[in-house]
Amino acid sequence: TGSGDGVSKTLGSFEGFEISKILSQNAKNKSAILCGKFQGSTDSAVVLLEKTPFPEPALPSLLSADLTLNLNLQNDIYSVYDGLPKQELGFNGIKTTVIYPATDRHIEKYTDQDITLLEETWEDYCNVTLPYLEQQVFKIQWVYNILEKKAEEVERIVFEDPDPQDGFVLLPDMKWDRKQMQNLYLVAICHRRGIKSLRDLNDTHLPLLRNIRDKCQEAVLEKYSIRPDQLRMYLHYQPSYYHLHVHVTHLKFDAPGSGVTKAHLLSDVIQNIELIPDYYQRKTLSFVIREKDGLLARFREVRGEKK
Amino acid sequence: TGSGDGVSKTLGSFEGFEISKILSQNAKNKSAILCGKFQGSTDSAVVLLEKTPFPEPALPSLLSADLTLNLNLQNDIYSVYDGLPKQELGFNGIKTTVIYPATDRHIEKYTDQDITLLEETWEDYCNVTLPYLEQQVFKIQWVYNILEKKAEEVERIVFEDPDPQDGFVLLPDMKWDRKQMQNLYLVAICHRRGIKSLRDLNDTHLPLLRNIRDKCQEAVLEKYSIRPDQLRMYLHYQPSYYHLHVHVTHLKFDAPGSGVTKAHLLSDVIQNIELIPDYYQRKTLSFVIREKDGLLARFREVRGEKK
Repeated sequence: TGSGDGVSKTLGSFEGFEISKILSQNAKNKSAILCGKFQGSTDSAVVLLEKTPFPEPALPSLLSADLTLNLNLQNDIYSVYDGLPKQELGFNGIKTTVIYPATDRHIEKYTDQDITLLEETWEDYCNVTLPYLEQQVFKIQWVYNILEKKAEEVERIVFEDPDPQDGFVLLPDMKWDRKQMQNLYLVAICHRRGIKSLRDLNDTHLPLLRNIRDKCQEAVLEKYSIRPDQLRMYLHYQPSYYHLHVHVTHLKFDAPGSGVTKAHLLSDVIQNIELIPDYYQRKTLSFVIREKDGLLARFREVRGEKK
Repeated sequence: TGSGDGVSKTLGSFEGFEISKILSQNAKNKSAILCGKFQGSTDSAVVLLEKTPFPEPALPSLLSADLTLNLNLQNDIYSVYDGLPKQELGFNGIKTTVIYPATDRHIEKYTDQDITLLEETWEDYCNVTLPYLEQQVFKIQWVYNILEKKAEEVERIVFEDPDPQDGFVLLPDMKWDRKQMQNLYLVAICHRRGIKSLRDLNDTHLPLLRNIRDKCQEAVLEKYSIRPDQLRMYLHYQPSYYHLHVHVTHLKFDAPGSGVTKAHLLSDVIQNIELIPDYYQRKTLSFVIREKDGLLARFREVRGEKK
């Protein structure tokens, strides 16, 4: 599935890798995203690095003689040290995601940039957003690979309702390490094709939405012993891909994209449509958008605004 | 300043340390907080562990043969690995803060409370929430002190519309340092009394809500040169005090309480009421609530649930 000379082979290390740019860094999340090239390749690769959370069962092994401490500062009852755990303890892991070959859009997606709150009326959606989306070539082959069981992720499927109308596949999001329940992150991807986003939803989709809600809650309770009232189920607007999917995260996990300027609770979506069947064809939706997003440029063009 | 046998001496490691409890963990921030005792001591110690951010200048040394990769999953152009850097590279550090001797208040402060998502119908609000709120003695004298200019905060007022019906006071939230524009956090507190929360709002409040929206945007633009499309304006439900107020934060600031299970965009509130005047007297509202909140206990009592 690669293009050019890029082949997505399994790596043992980054030997011979040349960093061309640091795209973004997040000191709060302990993550960094870089762009570069493998030796002998002209294709770009995007590398996402993120330190791993502390594995709870191993914490007693960490607070031992195996953590070397170097004093940094001390004040009254407070002391701060630089701690260095032994390699064998398992605290030094870095979750490393490689996107290769990466397109310019990938590089743009991961490059840190300013954001804006855009207010999209239904007319804006019809006149600006939808035509813009239709011009784009969307790469959602990976979604179809999952739904058609052609991807490796098939073995990771947590639950499936195979019904072509209201069914869906529930599987772990790439952001979840599948170990810690407190940052559980699943995605429910509906089998039905052609529902691009929230904007397409009306009362004919209520059975689908309720089915996703109910069966995801059941599956998560059964598989992970997490109660429905410990779950946050929501849709993104704008979504990162235009095939209807619902995010299922642990309520205690401060998941990226669960903020009020991007997330819409599934229970609110269902109820808004129950109150007004064409709610999402009437409502102005505010969403956060990146400065370099082509859609924002389009909006500014249409509105005759300058940056 | 120690008590009992606790002496805040410089540590070389945690040799002989006994963990008594994991107080909290944060998978997003890669942090964990524990409580325990040093060998031979009866005093408690609180230990804050946090992985260190990636040091930018050292990133090229990481993406090399010195990072061992173990494949976790692969799909199309995406691969995820468990990466393990060599100890010498300097990526394995853990910021370690020790509070010793720690009091019970320290332990309580750092103890994570479970949270639950509560779905409150309008009937629940009338039968459970409202009676519960009315039983409480609310301490909102501080709000009245501000509105009546009796508080010190008066000098910090950013803007005021003195109209008793639709006016409000705009001032910095305590969480804002008033220096960094990127984490700007203001609160608009309305002059009109008796509007407890979102639940009280209907079409008669539209002039008030629109006035807050428009004049806050103008004031922030004038005073801080921050455009309306860089602002996130929202209400909390449940609010921390029951006198109507609107949070005004910089869009780039990942403000606590701006998640979809607590925040309601002012623009959405206005529009929902425009669509359905009694929207907030009909809609079920989902909100996050802490395990020890008396309101949750009340709900469980009424619903005949056990924890």
